[in-house]
This record gives sequence, structure tokens and C-alpha cells, in this order.
Amino acid sequence: MDIISENRCFGGVQGVYGHRSKATGTDMTFGLFLPAEAADGPVPVLWYLSGLTCTHANAMEKAGAQGWAAEQGIAVIFPDTSPRGENVANDAAYDLGQGAGFYVDATEAPWAPHFAMESYIMQDLPSTVFDAFALDPNAQAITGHSMGGHGALTLAMKHPGRFRSVSAFAPICNPAASDWGQKQLGAYLGENADFEAHDASHLMRTDGLDVPLLIDTGTNDQFGDLLKTEAMASAVATRRAEATLRLQKGYDHSYFFVSSFMEDHMTFHSEALYA
Amino acid sequence: MDIISENRCFGGVQGVYGHRSKATGTDMTFGLFLPAEAADGPVPVLWYLSGLTCTHANAMEKAGAQGWAAEQGIAVIFPDTSPRGENVANDAAYDLGQGAGFYVDATEAPWAPHFAMESYIMQDLPSTVFDAFALDPNAQAITGHSMGGHGALTLAMKHPGRFRSVSAFAPICNPAASDWGQKQLGAYLGENADFEAHDASHLMRTDGLDVPLLIDTGTNDQFGDLLKTEAMASAVATRRAEATLRLQKGYDHSYFFVSSFMEDHMTFHSEALYA
Repeated sequence: MDIISENRCFGGVQGVYGHRSKATGTDMTFGLFLPAEAADGPVPVLWYLSGLTCTHANAMEKAGAQGWAAEQGIAVIFPDTSPRGENVANDAAYDLGQGAGFYVDATEAPWAPHFAMESYIMQDLPSTVFDAFALDPNAQAITGHSMGGHGALTLAMKHPGRFRSVSAFAPICNPAASDWGQKQLGAYLGENADFEAHDASHLMRTDGLDVPLLIDTGTNDQFGDLLKTEAMASAVATRRAEATLRLQKGYDHSYFFVSSFMEDHMTFHSEALYA
Repeated sequence: MDIISENRCFGGVQGVYGHRSKATGTDMTFGLFLPAEAADGPVPVLWYLSGLTCTHANAMEKAGAQGWAAEQGIAVIFPDTSPRGENVANDAAYDLGQGAGFYVDATEAPWAPHFAMESYIMQDLPSTVFDAFALDPNAQAITGHSMGGHGALTLAMKHPGRFRSVSAFAPICNPAASDWGQKQLGAYLGENADFEAHDASHLMRTDGLDVPLLIDTGTNDQFGDLLKTEAMASAVATRRAEATLRLQKGYDHSYFFVSSFMEDHMTFHSEALYA
């Protein structure tokens, strides 16, 4: 593991690190905010999965998570959103290929060799960070924005027991029925794949989530039609899951929205992580 | 004035606006965070001057000011750091020309026609924003980072009575004696100009500042030798000015440093603005 940068931040350290991933077969970069408490022993961890076009850096720089994480003594991991590099498949569109891994393991050409973001987030990166840093594997939570909200919701439901709490900012809720989902799941998994196995609203209906859930989405989200928040709202209500869904008046899809509600999400996760 | 973007943020609006500046003779772009309270009448204003290479956008996205500004009911203005455009003089170096206005009015070729950042910040942009938004001209404060810290300190001392409080993050303190200053002041004002008339440490010694001052600088600032914090520390102590200078252990020059202490600065300004 290589140290790319380390900056003192809210009494802790905002680091950026590089490592070789078996899952993706590439070098990967991630951000990690480690609060001061990590000097005394393992701290709880919040995974923050980012959206389309983002790298590890966007949320680390714009989401305003570190101050609240420092206050709660929680580490935050900011993974990249896909494998990258000259030898990694890509697409000219912003929403396919590099920067758009969708948190699934691709089975189809040309994506299969490197696009294994579910395995990367669930196995490969955890084995790296829990080995290298004072993080408590028994106190993990997950959140994400947009495509990363889809990732947080689906990974938590596909891997019950792994996360103590789940939240999302403007998540893609129903990719099996959206242009943000059908295109990518078709490319990565094949047009005949079971898209619903990677659809948060479907998973909520069929498997549910046995930990607390918080979702915030803006009423002025410019991608609202693609997110299909109504599918998740319906699924949560049908399932009678322990959940809070908030439609935030006037907010859009930007980091100005995400940062506005970061305190609430960090408090929410803190309650579960320290329970 | 043109609306470039408006995003709901912490209950207020983070806007980006374009306007024609008489001072610079160019179109200029600025950011403005307007808290919810502005709907009910004029609110206090904090000017945030950015550093070398920055536009209006960097601090607006990374400094984490809006949450604390919203809590205090304070507007924050994020001006650009220079005039820009194809017809505006520039230099290949990152620290001269576009993105490096140094908050002075240039008198020398090729800079004089457009590089009038002191007039822009002190006269031109205020006339625009106080006309267009619910801002209280009698409740202004100023802060800045690096070159913007130099701007905040020098403009406040050159224009006594304008700001109720002044702060800075890792400011350039003694440009008359630093490579961050001699080069630019020489280019913009001429090699024989009185650099000390634009030097915060000199102004503190000679004119002083009659409002509260807060400065934070990291002990690990990678540009520490260029900032010459010691000159300002000495000047403040000699002058016996009302001031707090803090050397923050382990912090560097980044926005991770700025954001870590933004709450303190906003609280500091709030006390003066609501006094």
C-alpha cells in the first residue's frame, strides 16, 4: 500500500492511498479519513460510495463528512467508483465504464476482466484497510450518493450482517427500470441477466434490510426521474422496514445537497455504530 | 447580472453569478451563499478571498463554510482571484496573472488594463451584490486563505471602518520580503513601488487594525517559509493589536486545514457582526 497523500484534518488525518487490487486486477486509489481516536485503538467505519463520474476525491473534498466524523470518532472510507487505466475497458459515455462501475461484478466482455466493484468493496478493499489501519470490522456502516446510494443499498441487502446501518443521498433506487441501470447492468452482466438481483427496491421487497435505513433526496433533483425514489418508498412501506425517507424541499443532486445533510447521516450512523 | 447556477444548500442558496465589472473591464464570476434569513431582510456578510490558482469555486466547494454560515445567518461571498479571458494578460507561472491578482490595482503593463482586484473587491463587486441581494453593508467581515489571507488583512487595514472583524487561514503575511509577493507586486506595481503599502505585517506595524483579528496557520504548512507568519506575529505583538494567532499542530496549507477551522472563524466573525 502506498501513501499518496496525508493531510491533517479536524484533528485526524485525511489520507489517500494506492494499493493493488486482486478483485479488479488493477492499482486502485482510495481516501480514508481517520479520526484522532484511531491512535488509541480501532474505530468504527463508514463506507462512502460515490456516484457517476466521481473518483475517490470528490466526496472527500466536497461532502463535508470529516468534521462530523471527527466529532463522532468515526473513520470514513472513500473508494473509487471503478477500475481505471489505459488497459481497462472504457466507454465514451459518462455513465458506463471508468467512473461508472455500478458496484457489481461484470461477467461480460469487455468489462469482466477488471470491473469487479462488488468484490472490491466487499472483500478486497476491506482486507487492505482492516489490515493497515485501526478500524473495527465489527462496526461498519455504509452510505453513498446517486450511483453510490444504489451501491450502499444493494450491497447492504446482498450482504446482511455486514453493516449496522445504511443511508443514501439521492440514490438510484430502481435501476432495473431506469436508464441509469438498464444500460449499465445490461453491459456488465448481459442483457438477459437478472437485473432485479441488483435493484434496491426489488431487494427491499424480497429480502428487506434488518438494520436502520435513512434516505434523503431533493425535491428539485434534476435526475429525479432516473432515481425512481417512488419505487423505494413503496418497497419500504410494503416491507414495513425500519426506515426514514425524506424528500428535502428545493434541494438538487449536487454536493451542496449532500453536505447539507451530512451531519444528520453521520449522527444516524453513529447511533448504530456505538449501539 | 446573470445567474450561472443556484443550488439549495443548508436551507439557503449557494449561487454563482456573472456580472460586468467596470474595475476590471471584464466579465467576472462570483459565488454567494445566502442563508435562509435573507428572505426576511438584509443579513451580515463575510467576504472570503481565495488563494493562488483558485477561482470563485474552490472555497465554495471545499472550505465547508456554508453549514456554519447558515447556523449564524451570515452570507458568504466568494469572489474570483483575478480577471480572466483571452484578452486579459497572463503568465505561464501559476503565481502571476490570471488566478493570482494579489488584491492590488496594477499600474504596470501588461497588467494595468484589467488587474484591479482591490477596486473590484472594495467597490465594484460590493455595488453589485448590495444592490442585488439582501445583504447588510453595515455588517461586513472579511477572511481569506493564503494570497486571499494577504488580501483580507491588507484590504482591512487599508480601508479602516469597512469590516467589523478580520481573519485569515495561512495568510501571506509579509509579501514585501517573500517570493510570494516581491515577484507579483513588482510585476503589477513596478519594481520601484512601495511594496510595504501592500504588506500586512508592515501595515500592522504602521497603521494597525482597530477590529478583532484571528489567524490560523498550520505548523506543517508546506509554504511556511513563503508566508512569513513570524513577521505578522511580531507586528501584532509590537502593535498590541486585539488578535489571536494560532499555530495549528500538524496542519498544512490545504482545504483540509481550512475546513477544520472554519467553524471557529465563522463563530469569531458572527460575534463581531452581531455585536
